[in-house]
Amino acid sequence: MPEIASHFLSLDEAPFHYARAGTGEPLLLLHGWPEFWLTWKRVMERLGDRFDLIAPDLRGFGRSGEPDPEPSDKVGPEIHATDMIWLLDALGIQTCGIVSHDVGCYVAQAMARRIPERISGLFFFGCVYPGIGNRWIAPDHIKEIWYQSFNQLPWAAALIGSSREACRLYFGNLIRQWSARKDAFDEVMEAWVDNFMTRGNIQGGFNWYRSANAMRVAMMKGELPPQPPIGLPTRVLWGAEERVLPAAWADKLGDYFTDLEFSTLPGVGHFPHMEDPDATSAAIRAFYDRLAKKG
Amino acid sequence: MPEIASHFLSLDEAPFHYARAGTGEPLLLLHGWPEFWLTWKRVMERLGDRFDLIAPDLRGFGRSGEPDPEPSDKVGPEIHATDMIWLLDALGIQTCGIVSHDVGCYVAQAMARRIPERISGLFFFGCVYPGIGNRWIAPDHIKEIWYQSFNQLPWAAALIGSSREACRLYFGNLIRQWSARKDAFDEVMEAWVDNFMTRGNIQGGFNWYRSANAMRVAMMKGELPPQPPIGLPTRVLWGAEERVLPAAWADKLGDYFTDLEFSTLPGVGHFPHMEDPDATSAAIRAFYDRLAKKG
Repeated sequence: MPEIASHFLSLDEAPFHYARAGTGEPLLLLHGWPEFWLTWKRVMERLGDRFDLIAPDLRGFGRSGEPDPEPSDKVGPEIHATDMIWLLDALGIQTCGIVSHDVGCYVAQAMARRIPERISGLFFFGCVYPGIGNRWIAPDHIKEIWYQSFNQLPWAAALIGSSREACRLYFGNLIRQWSARKDAFDEVMEAWVDNFMTRGNIQGGFNWYRSANAMRVAMMKGELPPQPPIGLPTRVLWGAEERVLPAAWADKLGDYFTDLEFSTLPGVGHFPHMEDPDATSAAIRAFYDRLAKKG
Repeated sequence: MPEIASHFLSLDEAPFHYARAGTGEPLLLLHGWPEFWLTWKRVMERLGDRFDLIAPDLRGFGRSGEPDPEPSDKVGPEIHATDMIWLLDALGIQTCGIVSHDVGCYVAQAMARRIPERISGLFFFGCVYPGIGNRWIAPDHIKEIWYQSFNQLPWAAALIGSSREACRLYFGNLIRQWSARKDAFDEVMEAWVDNFMTRGNIQGGFNWYRSANAMRVAMMKGELPPQPPIGLPTRVLWGAEERVLPAAWADKLGDYFTDLEFSTLPGVGHFPHMEDPDATSAAIRAFYDRLAKKG
């Protein structure tokens, strides 16, 4: 198993943290919410023989960004994409593959539009993309999306951080609810609570929802500005038991990604990389192997 | 000022509590969520010279119902209406007026359909009624209704009840958010926290949302079974600064209430009875005085 090392840089006068392991083709691993770099540990343990795996904490998550951030709506996909391009430059990486999840999927799409020439391929799990449209707010789906509004409240971080128990109840239950394999996070749950109880990371994560809200509402209204489809080689591996993002919503991916391979992963919900790291890692390896052969 | 006395009865082998004050025409005061009888105290202090004011704790709220209820979807408007008809019978009250708020508005409408001959008039604040329809889930309104989904989660009561502070943060912030007069509940907030930290009252209130969900989704879909309009004399006094139930949503009240007087109350949000008890009490008195003269 490769050693996973922690590295710190300085970005906008704040710390920026990433974990790195393995040797080979650079692969950027972009986490979602409520996550941080550690969500990739199982994948990193399985792919270090083939890839130079780089798992940053996005600004405001984990150990990146200023501690104790104020509520902000300025931490959307574009600033994270800027950070990631800065990171590639800082590490002297000209081209890389990307594996992304949840928030990370937005960041990967923003990167794909800005530096397509530096990205070999895009690997997504259940992927928020414009084709989901107003299905977010179908009457039968409303019950799944409350956290996207709750997380924007100016008092939400105080409530969830009011005690370690409150923090564990919130993140633990959300993660279990969204997973098909209910025990997938059990062994790391205290590390998750540690993470969110430090550095203002609860507000740091909630700032994603404040920052993404205008885009989210525009998607519901069908008013997102049209953009050309993404032509990079794209692999989507969608958890068959996703609740918040049902796999049926993949139906319009072809309108937004022109070089697309899609399949679902049975027995898995929102966190394929944590719920079934064997199958997930094998699929990542197979995709980039195929691209390397083509290349 | 009239003395307000607490009374206990027994209903379904559980305690049933109501507060009572004043003398005159019987007036049933039906609270909402997150409330209990105490929300009517300011109105009771102002109307005791004219009315026999009866403010029950609905089953699962305050001191009514079995303690520590399990999550349940069986505590909707019909069971509360049955309880209220039982209460009128138990008190030997043949006819009464009703003043209702929030959850109470549903209960009052159910009573109006079942015992119209025993109700002199209906006084509502911002009133959930079928004409609201799918405006609940308009993209720009989604941010206001998250609690209706959150409150249904099987782990929500554990989170909100995880400490007195968490409880205060949740109910205190919701109430402030929904009020135009931000200090309206300040002097009773500790009594509110006391209430919700005892007897399983957090779950008791949340059970309303579990029980009302099917009706709520049917309303969003426009699939509520049609019912004849309510013909009882009806007065709606809608807080002009309601956020969750904007006063503009009153536009279809006339389709559902055929004898309707409507106006908004300036400077007031979701809790007219707590935010402006003078104006609210005066409007209640004027409405029932007018009916009495007619009668």
